[in-house]
Amino acid sequence: MKNRAAYMTGINKMEIRDIAVPKLREKDVLVKLEYVGICGSDVHYLEHGKIGDFIVNGDFILGHECAGTVVEVGSGVQNLQVGDKVALEPGITCGQCEFCKTGRYNLCPDVEFLATPPYHGSLMNYIAFPENMCFKLPENITTKEGALVEPLAVGMHAANQGEVKLGSSVVILGAGTIGLVTLLACKANGATDITVVDVIPKRLEYAMKLGATKTINAMETDVFAEIDKLTDKRGVDIVIETAGSARTISQTPYLVKNGGTIVLVGLAPQDIIEFNFAKIMAKEATIKSVFRYKNIYPVAIKAISKGIIDITGIVTHEFDFDDVAHAFDYVINNKQDVVKAVIKID
Amino acid sequence: MKNRAAYMTGINKMEIRDIAVPKLREKDVLVKLEYVGICGSDVHYLEHGKIGDFIVNGDFILGHECAGTVVEVGSGVQNLQVGDKVALEPGITCGQCEFCKTGRYNLCPDVEFLATPPYHGSLMNYIAFPENMCFKLPENITTKEGALVEPLAVGMHAANQGEVKLGSSVVILGAGTIGLVTLLACKANGATDITVVDVIPKRLEYAMKLGATKTINAMETDVFAEIDKLTDKRGVDIVIETAGSARTISQTPYLVKNGGTIVLVGLAPQDIIEFNFAKIMAKEATIKSVFRYKNIYPVAIKAISKGIIDITGIVTHEFDFDDVAHAFDYVINNKQDVVKAVIKID
Amino acid sequence: MKNRAAYMTGINKMEIRDIAVPKLREKDVLVKLEYVGICGSDVHYLEHGKIGDFIVNGDFILGHECAGTVVEVGSGVQNLQVGDKVALEPGITCGQCEFCKTGRYNLCPDVEFLATPPYHGSLMNYIAFPENMCFKLPENITTKEGALVEPLAVGMHAANQGEVKLGSSVVILGAGTIGLVTLLACKANGATDITVVDVIPKRLEYAMKLGATKTINAMETDVFAEIDKLTDKRGVDIVIETAGSARTISQTPYLVKNGGTIVLVGLAPQDIIEFNFAKIMAKEATIKSVFRYKNIYPVAIKAISKGIIDITGIVTHEFDFDDVAHAFDYVINNKQDVVKAVIKID
Amino acid sequence: MKNRAAYMTGINKMEIRDIAVPKLREKDVLVKLEYVGICGSDVHYLEHGKIGDFIVNGDFILGHECAGTVVEVGSGVQNLQVGDKVALEPGITCGQCEFCKTGRYNLCPDVEFLATPPYHGSLMNYIAFPENMCFKLPENITTKEGALVEPLAVGMHAANQGEVKLGSSVVILGAGTIGLVTLLACKANGATDITVVDVIPKRLEYAMKLGATKTINAMETDVFAEIDKLTDKRGVDIVIETAGSARTISQTPYLVKNGGTIVLVGLAPQDIIEFNFAKIMAKEATIKSVFRYKNIYPVAIKAISKGIIDITGIVTHEFDFDDVAHAFDYVINNKQDVVKAVIKID
Repeated sequence: MKNRAAYMTGINKMEIRDIAVPKLREKDVLVKLEYVGICGSDVHYLEHGKIGDFIVNGDFILGHECAGTVVEVGSGVQNLQVGDKVALEPGITCGQCEFCKTGRYNLCPDVEFLATPPYHGSLMNYIAFPENMCFKLPENITTKEGALVEPLAVGMHAANQGEVKLGSSVVILGAGTIGLVTLLACKANGATDITVVDVIPKRLEYAMKLGATKTINAMETDVFAEIDKLTDKRGVDIVIETAGSARTISQTPYLVKNGGTIVLVGLAPQDIIEFNFAKIMAKEATIKSVFRYKNIYPVAIKAISKGIIDITGIVTHEFDFDDVAHAFDYVINNKQDVVKAVIKID
Repeated sequence: MKNRAAYMTGINKMEIRDIAVPKLREKDVLVKLEYVGICGSDVHYLEHGKIGDFIVNGDFILGHECAGTVVEVGSGVQNLQVGDKVALEPGITCGQCEFCKTGRYNLCPDVEFLATPPYHGSLMNYIAFPENMCFKLPENITTKEGALVEPLAVGMHAANQGEVKLGSSVVILGAGTIGLVTLLACKANGATDITVVDVIPKRLEYAMKLGATKTINAMETDVFAEIDKLTDKRGVDIVIETAGSARTISQTPYLVKNGGTIVLVGLAPQDIIEFNFAKIMAKEATIKSVFRYKNIYPVAIKAISKGIIDITGIVTHEFDFDDVAHAFDYVINNKQDVVKAVIKID
Repeated sequence: MKNRAAYMTGINKMEIRDIAVPKLREKDVLVKLEYVGICGSDVHYLEHGKIGDFIVNGDFILGHECAGTVVEVGSGVQNLQVGDKVALEPGITCGQCEFCKTGRYNLCPDVEFLATPPYHGSLMNYIAFPENMCFKLPENITTKEGALVEPLAVGMHAANQGEVKLGSSVVILGAGTIGLVTLLACKANGATDITVVDVIPKRLEYAMKLGATKTINAMETDVFAEIDKLTDKRGVDIVIETAGSARTISQTPYLVKNGGTIVLVGLAPQDIIEFNFAKIMAKEATIKSVFRYKNIYPVAIKAISKGIIDITGIVTHEFDFDDVAHAFDYVINNKQDVVKAVIKID
Repeated sequence: MKNRAAYMTGINKMEIRDIAVPKLREKDVLVKLEYVGICGSDVHYLEHGKIGDFIVNGDFILGHECAGTVVEVGSGVQNLQVGDKVALEPGITCGQCEFCKTGRYNLCPDVEFLATPPYHGSLMNYIAFPENMCFKLPENITTKEGALVEPLAVGMHAANQGEVKLGSSVVILGAGTIGLVTLLACKANGATDITVVDVIPKRLEYAMKLGATKTINAMETDVFAEIDKLTDKRGVDIVIETAGSARTISQTPYLVKNGGTIVLVGLAPQDIIEFNFAKIMAKEATIKSVFRYKNIYPVAIKAISKGIIDITGIVTHEFDFDDVAHAFDYVINNKQDVVKAVIKID
């Protein structure tokens, strides 16, 4: 058993190195990783060395969207066996703080999250991980699909925060990876009217293919006029902002219905955004936000397994582990083309 | 039976005129009004002739915080009798639209709200009003208290929107009328830590008298530092903004706890406000807003009757009906002194 | 324009009589009915002359599952036009009581519900009905489907009461009409595991055809053992009881998961039922119940229109209006065969 | 430092024995216990040797309502110091299962709960306990009050399950310890009408003293008639059953309002109870149940500290540790007299 990991060794520098196969603690399993997705945050760390207050310090292993097969189990492991395919939920939380105790473990201040400094990621062959964060995949789900549960979970949490349900009308601003997984989640939750807005035609094509009931190219069409027309000037039940631009965030109060909900998913610029709160108040609208996700993996896996969500539809590129540096390079230089790239671990 | 009403006849012009005693429809009661409170919106109409899209067109009767005694009942009235003291909930809603049917009648597009153009207010002796919007006051509540149920309802709705409950920690920004009724509501809902922030010492004194656990004068003290100290840098469960200034709205993301809620009550400036959404998202905070209120009157009346809320504590000035023009004048010119002025209807 | 209605004139006696075309009030529309479904309650009134405290007194028109086409509009009608296909929500509520004001209009004590004494039903050619209770059907929905929105609404309300959502596991006890519409609703709400239990093979076949993931014939198989096997002895998230028998109600505590929810839909026998509350408490389970429905029609129509729910799948029999007496006769004598019979109004 | 524990050595047999002072794990604190309350479950184990499936096997230490002072801290303890007064939440949960992850840790299947076989209780001088389950008491709370947080938590969880809030009307069936702490919790949550029903006059006196707005002696007065009179035949918002008798459980459907909630707290007889579900359904009432509590300690301590709840009001008897066998004896033989007895640990 030989282990290797892909290290970020500086800005835009990556290399694969040999590392030891990790030792298992009592409740850990050893997972032979098979697929690791490349997330926007991985790319951001590689290009900028930090995200907000999280600063890469020294050589650093990226990757946190991952799945593989259990090859060894710790002495206290109860529910997993060698041979089980599993998807890894990358945030290990304390289970004992105020936030964990109230079911909001995504806010746990002591979380250890893969590929979030100072915690290394999972771009490697073998990882030791707590059993309870390894979710068994049914027969009919591949580990490629398993690796995609992570980004899907963000979209599903966004839909949950917006309380998207049967019959909901939704506008999704942005059709990047998060916009598209949010679309899949909204559809799975029963939304009947899902309009996706972006400025890149290719992304809007993906949105249509993945189940949008309408797409709007904001370069060509007046978004407000179009939504007014679609909703008889009433606005939609839920507006989900995934683009993370000041411009799209500031559009949300005009798109939402009286009593409706705006969900912020796309990372807002750290600086200050202009926003029409008077309109929010006149509509008594609610603004929710999304920080990672919670309690999603079991549902996501069921939804994929039952055919309710076709998550492989978001994968546009696949690379071999040996080409990982090239893969990141490609993603960085082809942002408009790539929706989701995955690394196949040999 | 002789009826008179106080008309706004132009910007800053008021006069009392004789009017007919209104006829009752089947389910109306005729109420001899005894107290009408002066609301900030009444003052705003008098000074500016409009609020947002609501424009005063021609002579206009102000006033919507009111209570009195039933003196006559329509033929179909079932639950009220002559002699009953009642508080009037000023917004008559359709009961049949999407918003009414889902219990959010404050968003009813066809609401007829007293003193909101084109609907006249209640600064008069006798008003005809639907029985089901006249809430009977128990023996131990005066009609002066009854008139104050209306502003209290805004504070109670704010507390509800924030889900303030036993043990909650709250910061209230602004100690004007709405800040103070919000304070009373938070206390009644069980909040155990209520910090009120303002820049006018007199208002902060009122806040202390009405039950704040701490007050901060933002002219003298660094609000962020103080709340950090109080909460061990964690922030409070709920931040309720009642000042309606761009500055205080922009402070809210810094005061709220991870997973906490901001409630916007003070009317935001119609123009654009700068706001740190990145912080909201990092905390996965929620922003709720308040448009009037719903389903509050019965609870408010119980809370006053049981001594849980002492609403008369907010009244600082009382005027006779004949002095109504002077009363408005006084309120306009002494905004820092007046918390709540009421008109006693003879 | 000639109007006729099907009167129940005694126990198991029906006849068609000429009646006047009703006059429209300001906000009414005149609907030419095209389909009226036969509900278990219609049959029960015909066989027994009463349901609980609701007693048929004199000749009585049955029917409340209905849809048709608008042929005339009152002077105050705003949103409907002649030619619009509409489904009628049969309960006209006051809009002003405590229950209506809080969005629980199904509990309005003053509701006027079609075919619930003393209010006549809709087995007739022309009915006058308030515009706001007539829900416009899109082009791609037939009035036959429109008539079925009513029973579907019960199932959808049951799913809502149980908070069925993406990934939920559900057991539905009973595969009669209500069991089957509940199945459709659970599936539409995203339930991924739906087990339907009944004792009649034909009904279980329907359940499989309509999307159950498993069926159990309780005559042949031990239901508890089977659910234990399916859920690894944990029980299901939500148990929905639609059979209305003492036996099935008493089974529910054994089938539900810790922290799960039981929803009672099938009308419980008026007399007393044995029930293991100790088990409910050990599981901290919740028991919800269903009384009619609320705020479902718009969502139901969207779900049918978008192909999420195929409601015509529950129709097993169709009769002409002239054969209405025979239709009821047939339904009464073939209860195991008939899921849903509809009357086509000429 | 010398440690002693009170062992149950057989049915109705207790003795105090010397035991070792426990060793601390990294995140444990050593607590010198000062007060331990006697719970009905302790008494039940002593009298019967078991509760349901939990069977006392061998010598067993009772007691789980407890508080004391920290005298030593483990190497990894971060938030507590020697000298801190603390109340112990007696259920240590895994923090990682489905129930813990969703904030329902009271349903954790792997909970280690004090004085619930096979886990010993806390009737001893020194106990080692995880830091995060030891809640620091402010200066103004005694450890006697600290020990009473545990029973109070049950009442507060009952009030939470019933969503008792400002203005709620409540009937509490049973005025034993749990009935009385539920009363305190309902009052603290803002309930304005709280009727307590029992058959023992002394308990009803306690209820009046602790804040009931009305008491009913069910031996003398017809409960249904009385509640009908109080509520104008509408019933109350929330009925909380704490007596745990078949008779009182079966009364609940008749006391609750349309759309209201019944909360089951008193342990239902394991055998079968007769219950009128038809009435539940006609009212669309909800039945909630209570299994221990969750996330209550911080709020309970705040409420006591702020004077909102006076928990010492429930203590009727106090015994010394050396008299622990006598104390249990006394409680067993004077059930009608004793509300809450506490053991003062020397």
